Amino acid sequence: MTYDLYYWPGLPGRGEYVRLVLEAVGADYRDMARLPAAEGGGIEAMSAFLRGDKGPHVPLAPPFLVAGDLVLSQTAAIVATLGERHGLAPEAEADRLFARAIALTTADLVAEAHDVHHPVGVSLYYDDQRPEAARRAKEFRNARMPKFLGWYERLLSANPSGPEHLVADRLTYADLGLFQTIAGLGYAFPRRMASLMPDYPLVAAVCERVAAAPRIRAYLESDRRLAFNEDGIFRHYPELDGD
Amino acid sequence: MTYDLYYWPGLPGRGEYVRLVLEAVGADYRDMARLPAAEGGGIEAMSAFLRGDKGPHVPLAPPFLVAGDLVLSQTAAIVATLGERHGLAPEAEADRLFARAIALTTADLVAEAHDVHHPVGVSLYYDDQRPEAARRAKEFRNARMPKFLGWYERLLSANPSGPEHLVADRLTYADLGLFQTIAGLGYAFPRRMASLMPDYPLVAAVCERVAAAPRIRAYLESDRRLAFNEDGIFRHYPELDGD
Repeated sequence: MTYDLYYWPGLPGRGEYVRLVLEAVGADYRDMARLPAAEGGGIEAMSAFLRGDKGPHVPLAPPFLVAGDLVLSQTAAIVATLGERHGLAPEAEADRLFARAIALTTADLVAEAHDVHHPVGVSLYYDDQRPEAARRAKEFRNARMPKFLGWYERLLSANPSGPEHLVADRLTYADLGLFQTIAGLGYAFPRRMASLMPDYPLVAAVCERVAAAPRIRAYLESDRRLAFNEDGIFRHYPELDGD
Repeated sequence: MTYDLYYWPGLPGRGEYVRLVLEAVGADYRDMARLPAAEGGGIEAMSAFLRGDKGPHVPLAPPFLVAGDLVLSQTAAIVATLGERHGLAPEAEADRLFARAIALTTADLVAEAHDVHHPVGVSLYYDDQRPEAARRAKEFRNARMPKFLGWYERLLSANPSGPEHLVADRLTYADLGLFQTIAGLGYAFPRRMASLMPDYPLVAAVCERVAAAPRIRAYLESDRRLAFNEDGIFRHYPELDGD
């Protein structure tokens, strides 16, 4: 099975959550929007799905993943479906469903991290909403970041299989999502994360473990891994950071 | 199987999406936070789960649904799990996965509708962020509402089984979520919805069909149905509405 991933080229964004799962399971995949049009890739190939030219299961937005006749959209649903297919998910039903809830909660945190620099709306530039962004950033740093980080830490300390994973006794797509989110927050809010992270040692340990997993490490060192930048979801605007 | 639903009493909010599925399938359920403490209900009973006193599958926030040993959280995951268990979901795999993506996209729209009146953050009152809300409302009305409504309309017109449902050939939890969202938008933005909805006749027809389904109609006429109000997600602040 070859997977075709569609996501905006040039930024890790939500596509990176899918890419990490594909890499972790050693899947055969193509990163379509980064391929030339001559190979069936590019933005136009992505747009065809979004316009509805490729069948009735139309995504509202990237990322989406095409697998044979399946068109999977919504990041949290894509990673859950992939994880459950490829052994990167819990086996017991209660744990399997909880992993899905964790991925959805991570997606909420990602959306909030995005809205820090776009509190008024996605169709306006950051420069057109800087005062609003400054207010939202303060709330995000002081209230929301500790709330989410504290929740992850609590899950790890409460996991009956041990604090090595968010759920069950193995690496799952939920752990990969936490890794990417902590990396993104560290890029966007280095000062705030430096002051916060000592309170969340179990979260930090999971992220180190994910980064050291052989396939993930090889991926992170490859040119397939995209660096965070100011076109993405996690943006480093120093004026929005703070201890 | 008795389900215990936990959600803030006094507002429909995200809990209503779960309640509609429970009602549509005729499930036996208790609305825990609306029950007195003497019957095991109330806010304190809900808080016990959120603190982690009730096991390792800790929700970040309500709604959550307890079913025997399962603790299901995240609205879109709860409705999908319920729908798939109780025949309110598509049967074919591709359709079943697409229904999940639709519910997640609806959850995104609901979050955006909430952020219209809380663009700076949830820990501040609306009165403390009125100028920001006015800007975000304009963007939401002019760009986001047509984008989402147009997407639902396109799904309906593209459904190979006909425009009666968002996916497959039957009523699913995806249709229920659309119904509730259109109702909420109609409450919060009556002027904007009056000018927009003529462009989305298939969406309007689905909502009428959902409201007329026998169990849903009986529920909507019952005192279990909570009215929209200004403590909820969909709030009617006339200054945020407009043609």
